[in-house]
Amino acid sequence: MNNVTLPTLEVCLSPALLHLYDTRNTVVVIIDIFRATSTIVAALDNGAKCVIPVASVPECIELGNSIPNSITAGERDGKVVPGLQKGNSPLEYPKEYVQGKTLVLTTTNGTRLLHMVEGADSIVIGSFLNLDVICNFIAGQNKNVLLGCASWKDRFNLEDTLFAGAVVNSVANNFSINCDSARAAQHLYLSSGGTNFLNFLRNSSHYLRLSSYGLERDLEYCTTPNLHPVLPLLKGREIVIAK
Amino acid sequence: MNNVTLPTLEVCLSPALLHLYDTRNTVVVIIDIFRATSTIVAALDNGAKCVIPVASVPECIELGNSIPNSITAGERDGKVVPGLQKGNSPLEYPKEYVQGKTLVLTTTNGTRLLHMVEGADSIVIGSFLNLDVICNFIAGQNKNVLLGCASWKDRFNLEDTLFAGAVVNSVANNFSINCDSARAAQHLYLSSGGTNFLNFLRNSSHYLRLSSYGLERDLEYCTTPNLHPVLPLLKGREIVIAK
Repeated sequence: MNNVTLPTLEVCLSPALLHLYDTRNTVVVIIDIFRATSTIVAALDNGAKCVIPVASVPECIELGNSIPNSITAGERDGKVVPGLQKGNSPLEYPKEYVQGKTLVLTTTNGTRLLHMVEGADSIVIGSFLNLDVICNFIAGQNKNVLLGCASWKDRFNLEDTLFAGAVVNSVANNFSINCDSARAAQHLYLSSGGTNFLNFLRNSSHYLRLSSYGLERDLEYCTTPNLHPVLPLLKGREIVIAK
Repeated sequence: MNNVTLPTLEVCLSPALLHLYDTRNTVVVIIDIFRATSTIVAALDNGAKCVIPVASVPECIELGNSIPNSITAGERDGKVVPGLQKGNSPLEYPKEYVQGKTLVLTTTNGTRLLHMVEGADSIVIGSFLNLDVICNFIAGQNKNVLLGCASWKDRFNLEDTLFAGAVVNSVANNFSINCDSARAAQHLYLSSGGTNFLNFLRNSSHYLRLSSYGLERDLEYCTTPNLHPVLPLLKGREIVIAK
């Protein structure tokens, strides 16, 4: 293969660094492993009609009131927000509950990053739950790709970068990579051994915070590859499964 | 050891993330491996009286004119700046040239980060050339420490993070670490095998850029541990060897 003609692959480690990247005509993968993008992927695969990401709690409540058969959901600082019906756990959205419903979701990091991206060719939702689907999709697009880590209040986090590294490692041959963040993410993924992600993340800040809230099952679920092999795509204001 | 009483150790991956960290009463290590902090360490160990970091080229020239026995030096985008006497290579400052002189230095990343830090207990200059000195110093201070990577125009880079990881790995037992950047940096260092840093960095953005300018010898020099075992410390506007 001739590297010159390959599209680029870059990793943005924090929303505070997003301005350094040109997202125009780029495929952007939004990554918020603990837990927004894992929740979106699980809810859609379990039959949700769509997910509408919103920036604020009042907006979430207002939109929920105006949409029939909707659920208001979200978290701030990893905790359920009073006034919303549900939290930000993929385990809260089994088929029997979520099927046919619209999820209106607001979170600390993931939904915020999604709204910051400008001019992208497409915005898709990545998580370990749909890892292979994401890799296959971006490898087949022949377009520049940015993997965008939602991080934690702009601070680098290990789990989003680990996922980015898993993607880089999988699709590296399809891209021209001249991005140290992508290289570091790939090294991180290789350090993990590529099998037990949860174990690798056990001393991470987010693991420690969320497990202190009793959310170990969430953490295990969110680090299980390919449980929900769907491709969530932003269309207008709605995230839907790509046809 | 009781972790609760240990000071914290954090890593800031880019100047664009510096606002997320509290640098007050903290020991801050400035890291710009390719090449500002390597040059500062080499010049001081080779006998320079002091190094004065400045933000702009005009400021560099003006200050150089006003200080007897001084050298104006610097780079922009990795290249020597017209109007300055010397560049940003540690190899430009052998003992016979630099002894007793004041180096007035302006660079793209390293000197900029240094001026951004506010309220620190102390600011020291780190590079592979003085790796063990830095580790011994911060381990003995019993103060919170921030390792600040100068990066490349705010973009994460591999070499500064690799150095931060080498430090984290060396002093981890002396600190309480709850910082994913520090953990990732340590993983990166462990991935490198801890011996041939230059080889590990061969596909990094900065290596590719600087080697295209014919600076391979610089890159090799800057990744050699403990060639210049001194502790450069910011005192007022001057960087001097700590007594």
